[in-house]
Amino acid sequence: MNKNFARLLIGSGESSPEIRYLTGISTPDDFICLEYSGSVTALMSKLEISRARQVAKPGVSVLPESDYGTTRCEIISKAAGTMKVKSFEVPPSFPLGIAEKLRAAGLTLTVSERPFCPGRISKTPEEVELITASQRAGEAGFARAVTVLQEASISNSGEILWQNTPLTSEILRAEIDCAILKSGSLPTGTICAGAIQSSQPHNCGSGKLYAAAPIVMDIFPRNPESGYWGDLTRTVVKGKAPAIVKNAYLAVKDARDTVKENISLGADCAKLHKLAEKILDKHRFFTGVSDGEPFGFFHGLGHGVGLEIHEAPRLSPRSTEKLSGGEVFTVEPGVYYREWGGIRLEDLIYLAPDGTVNCLTEAPDFLEID
Amino acid sequence: MNKNFARLLIGSGESSPEIRYLTGISTPDDFICLEYSGSVTALMSKLEISRARQVAKPGVSVLPESDYGTTRCEIISKAAGTMKVKSFEVPPSFPLGIAEKLRAAGLTLTVSERPFCPGRISKTPEEVELITASQRAGEAGFARAVTVLQEASISNSGEILWQNTPLTSEILRAEIDCAILKSGSLPTGTICAGAIQSSQPHNCGSGKLYAAAPIVMDIFPRNPESGYWGDLTRTVVKGKAPAIVKNAYLAVKDARDTVKENISLGADCAKLHKLAEKILDKHRFFTGVSDGEPFGFFHGLGHGVGLEIHEAPRLSPRSTEKLSGGEVFTVEPGVYYREWGGIRLEDLIYLAPDGTVNCLTEAPDFLEID
Repeated sequence: MNKNFARLLIGSGESSPEIRYLTGISTPDDFICLEYSGSVTALMSKLEISRARQVAKPGVSVLPESDYGTTRCEIISKAAGTMKVKSFEVPPSFPLGIAEKLRAAGLTLTVSERPFCPGRISKTPEEVELITASQRAGEAGFARAVTVLQEASISNSGEILWQNTPLTSEILRAEIDCAILKSGSLPTGTICAGAIQSSQPHNCGSGKLYAAAPIVMDIFPRNPESGYWGDLTRTVVKGKAPAIVKNAYLAVKDARDTVKENISLGADCAKLHKLAEKILDKHRFFTGVSDGEPFGFFHGLGHGVGLEIHEAPRLSPRSTEKLSGGEVFTVEPGVYYREWGGIRLEDLIYLAPDGTVNCLTEAPDFLEID
Repeated sequence: MNKNFARLLIGSGESSPEIRYLTGISTPDDFICLEYSGSVTALMSKLEISRARQVAKPGVSVLPESDYGTTRCEIISKAAGTMKVKSFEVPPSFPLGIAEKLRAAGLTLTVSERPFCPGRISKTPEEVELITASQRAGEAGFARAVTVLQEASISNSGEILWQNTPLTSEILRAEIDCAILKSGSLPTGTICAGAIQSSQPHNCGSGKLYAAAPIVMDIFPRNPESGYWGDLTRTVVKGKAPAIVKNAYLAVKDARDTVKENISLGADCAKLHKLAEKILDKHRFFTGVSDGEPFGFFHGLGHGVGLEIHEAPRLSPRSTEKLSGGEVFTVEPGVYYREWGGIRLEDLIYLAPDGTVNCLTEAPDFLEID
């Protein structure tokens, strides 16, 4: 690292993965972080300083922002003066409003063209453990959903009944999310979408759930202390699945598992996506647009998971990335059709630096629940 | 509104309250939103477009971003060309990286000096209802915590025991959060901090809970559909509270209730904070700094609540705001001392445009739980 290289960040530990990665501090409100000659300083409000000192990563200096001024611009200008620095590299997400004030005050800000924390993409064994812990919490949520669906019955009109009332997306989601909480993670926007709702990949699901139709459960909890996410999707049917749903399930499973077999050091992320698409095509689950709305496999194959739920690498048709070892990422092909719904199966993969492919997901695969 | 006035936003419905307020759309990933001559356009990815069309506010145009280009800069430039606009107002939080690319492509961006969505501070009756719904979910969480603490016993060494095991912050938080989920909201970073941990206002709490010491519970759920928050804090003691804790509780309650009596149209937010400080001083709970760490009442008296958990107005010593009716905000004085912990009591207030002061919090006030 360049000795006189200075960097500047503003963000909350909740919203800025970079600031959390560099400092280890998580806060609900924004704070300022400076890095100079490789050492990191966090400037904290009175409200946060004592807790920040306890949780900061080794080597991070935690100082009271009030020693430097009251407005953000004053605080940064004075801190820069103390460090004898006039020029900072900032991430592309740096807020324009503050950037303009700092430039007017005589500082030079340069937007970083390279990843701001390049180390983030290659996970340490400790990070893999933290991600796995969140993944286990998500799996506890899925296991609870399976139990609820096993206990449930089917009404004459095809509704799923549980504990003497119609089972809804909301009830099933609350059961999943409580199991996640009891496993020590925080549920975020758990998807529990049935039938036609499952044809929209990010529809959270609402209202009654029905037998003989897909129920997509996409579960992505975050550990509140570490900030690391897990991510898991399974699709099930209560009762018997119609042939089209069964075939779609087998096609998506084939796509996911074939991609997993093709993961290796140097693998091209866009090619992995195209491989999944090819297999889905082979099973005659085609992708396209009809009446302005997409159908088939119209999202990326996967994404990195860490301090962000969606981070590098991206496994999508436009990705230019190659896997180089250390990445944790999802493999989650899916197909979606307005006529009957959708199927998505998502596993979380850790490609070790030696090329070993580890599946971090332990949740079982099955479609029908009796 | 100026007829040729154009504005530009980039954000996710999760992270950007402005984009959610203007479009009604919530997404995990960023999207582009343009406003021109008062009409709002959201440019969505294939993944989100069908759901976005269903949830968008009336009058919002939802168009596929792929009609305009592939990179953000291309999409915005082409959309601006279609609208024959070369100049946009953007919020201070607009990302510097994209701003520089757009400027290089010939667009003019001006950071808004005024609030980007000035209507957000004055809540409509519908918004007050949505906030109240989240508040009720938080109260269900608090009620569950009280039940757990009532069921609990005290060991000879002063530990709190529940269901035959020591009660921890983690277990109590999971009970609170499950009750929130079952009430239809999402728990976020529920604070359940006992004894000395409660002397740090944002310490989430961990490990065993003890009798005869404060337990601060700060509960702020968010409704996943509407995006509106609730916010509630109560402090309780299992068993008998020591005199200092009882006196601090009475002082904080006096501060909160006196501030509530002084809320009116035109009230000065900084003066309300100072009033709370004065009352705490009168009770001899002083504020200051010792060994570089603050003690007493060292956070703001309150903050607005809506699509953000912390939004305008700010009730703090440096606030320059006056209440003008329509605001929903917290009143949450607290005192914190390393020697024994902290007390915070937080109510949520709706100041109606006619000057009526409505307390949206229905949770009861008490200190000791037998």
